[in-house]
Amino acid sequence: MSNKKSALSETEGVSSPEMTNADAVSKIKAKRKQQRTTKDLVDAILKGNITALSQAITLIESKNLKHTDQANAIIKACLPHANTSIRIGITGVPGVGKSTFIEAFGTHLTTLNKKVAVLAVDPSSSLTKGSILGDKTRMEDLVKNKQAFIRPSASGTSLGGVARKTRETIILCEAAGFDTVIIETVGVGQSETAVHSMVDFFLLLKLAGAGDELQGIKRGIIEMADAIAINKADGDNLKRAKLAKVEFNRALHMYPTKDSDWQPKVTTCSAIDNQGIDNIWQIISDYITLTKKNNYFKNKRTEQNKFWLLQTIEEQLKNTFFNTPKIKDELKKQLDLIEANKTTPFAAADYLLSL
Amino acid sequence: MSNKKSALSETEGVSSPEMTNADAVSKIKAKRKQQRTTKDLVDAILKGNITALSQAITLIESKNLKHTDQANAIIKACLPHANTSIRIGITGVPGVGKSTFIEAFGTHLTTLNKKVAVLAVDPSSSLTKGSILGDKTRMEDLVKNKQAFIRPSASGTSLGGVARKTRETIILCEAAGFDTVIIETVGVGQSETAVHSMVDFFLLLKLAGAGDELQGIKRGIIEMADAIAINKADGDNLKRAKLAKVEFNRALHMYPTKDSDWQPKVTTCSAIDNQGIDNIWQIISDYITLTKKNNYFKNKRTEQNKFWLLQTIEEQLKNTFFNTPKIKDELKKQLDLIEANKTTPFAAADYLLSL
Repeated sequence: MSNKKSALSETEGVSSPEMTNADAVSKIKAKRKQQRTTKDLVDAILKGNITALSQAITLIESKNLKHTDQANAIIKACLPHANTSIRIGITGVPGVGKSTFIEAFGTHLTTLNKKVAVLAVDPSSSLTKGSILGDKTRMEDLVKNKQAFIRPSASGTSLGGVARKTRETIILCEAAGFDTVIIETVGVGQSETAVHSMVDFFLLLKLAGAGDELQGIKRGIIEMADAIAINKADGDNLKRAKLAKVEFNRALHMYPTKDSDWQPKVTTCSAIDNQGIDNIWQIISDYITLTKKNNYFKNKRTEQNKFWLLQTIEEQLKNTFFNTPKIKDELKKQLDLIEANKTTPFAAADYLLSL
Repeated sequence: MSNKKSALSETEGVSSPEMTNADAVSKIKAKRKQQRTTKDLVDAILKGNITALSQAITLIESKNLKHTDQANAIIKACLPHANTSIRIGITGVPGVGKSTFIEAFGTHLTTLNKKVAVLAVDPSSSLTKGSILGDKTRMEDLVKNKQAFIRPSASGTSLGGVARKTRETIILCEAAGFDTVIIETVGVGQSETAVHSMVDFFLLLKLAGAGDELQGIKRGIIEMADAIAINKADGDNLKRAKLAKVEFNRALHMYPTKDSDWQPKVTTCSAIDNQGIDNIWQIISDYITLTKKNNYFKNKRTEQNKFWLLQTIEEQLKNTFFNTPKIKDELKKQLDLIEANKTTPFAAADYLLSL
């Protein structure tokens, strides 16, 4: 057949490649061997092994229920070794220089012999949109630093889910010996409230603007801040930054004293010139000293735990209720009836709850 | 027997009084006749009859389920005639002069031919503790004014319950022809948020302090205010009040623009000297004109209705869950386990929800 000159003729060719690539197979086999048992992972994490830490965090982030079970077991085993770090939340609008700041700040902490974990909460992040911290090249020094661990935000659209994963990741980082955990978030949306509820100290990064210093920041974030750092206080910007500092100080002094008895501080810094970074760590240290002394530090963590317990239950109760198909249909109808002045919100609620 | 001299002897006496007092019986019978049917009450309310309005509000406030049913029927019938008033929330710490202000402000509105209803939200009020507005003598002119209706806060310890009763009372007042509804609350606790969620305009009353102008006001209330009126701007206080006005104006300008596009106003007044009261009504009128024009007025009411619907459902779901005896017991245990680093808030929540 093969010698016939025809459009249908076949020429002998090389044998088709095997369906499996021997090289890849051996790599996969090696990888499977690496998949450690829960006990192995916990032991390694407690010894500060970064690979084990990363693997365990991947289990936390997985949607596979088997992984979730293993993650829960690891978290439980790590818990007695957790709660040991200082947790610092950092927020600011895009463009304020968060990555550059964390690079400088984190590096400074490592020179003080601290072990620094950098996490992020960004519910809007996804593979296509790119998450904060995803572009690790923006922190090139810190990413190479052996005393630092950088992990991008868990993906997911529900803030509750992302926040839970981050809270659980903090536990593992602490068990792995990280004594300072930085949690980054963008200064828009609801994520600051979530981050504020999982950290000891909340730092707001700002830029010196032209007069309207508090613009662009969501209401309430100023009140959450334990310190405001006006970044990019360098070159031509220096004078404006100093003016902004005065303005913010005046604004902050008009608020009532915080429960922590801490008077929020305003400072300037230049992450790119590495100016004022040490001062920010000094402010945080002063805060920790004060709040450990007056017990606010411990009480706040207890309150945070209670908050997350109740929050998780409430969200779950709501999800279950509002995702019932019957409720979904009727909710829309009841809202229309309210709009048409035919029922009140209360009568509508009573009706929906009776279904 | 009666003639025997003995310690046990009895002397004839007057006949003992009847168990029922004929006069009281006739009064009770007359009162029962006054208890009108739902239709009678609704008809009377729509004609602006104050006695019927008061009776219907009493039904709303009653804990008797029969009364609740009748109240719900009355509310439903009144609904098509509701949503017609301007609803104004007024808050301020005790001592700021709320009663005197409302007396002056309400009286001014009646001279503009308005019909003014004054309600209150005060979840802490009870018969023994005395509720705000309870002492109507503090508003002696307004209480006698035929164009005004003053009703103290419904009693109750749950803010949700008190707020619901007040929201329902607003409906009846509007159906009775009141075109301006003032809702008073004390400037402490959570009640301002509830009042803010049921009014079109939120007014904060303040006193000129010494430097620390924003002290004593809960965080967030300043942000809720559509206007701040510095009261008692009279006599020796006048200069300080004017200074405070400048300070507040500066503080308010540092916040981002509100969704209403309204720039909150700061003004001074003296309720006791009747100074600046007309100006406050002018501010409110300007606000109403702006927000009706840009549709914020209507959109806000729609949002408020949705808020109360969801809020009522969420509260009910939580109440049902957390009042289950099993959950009550286990919640305490889980909180202890979290405290002892033996479980996480999330694992505890999962466990409680699985019970």
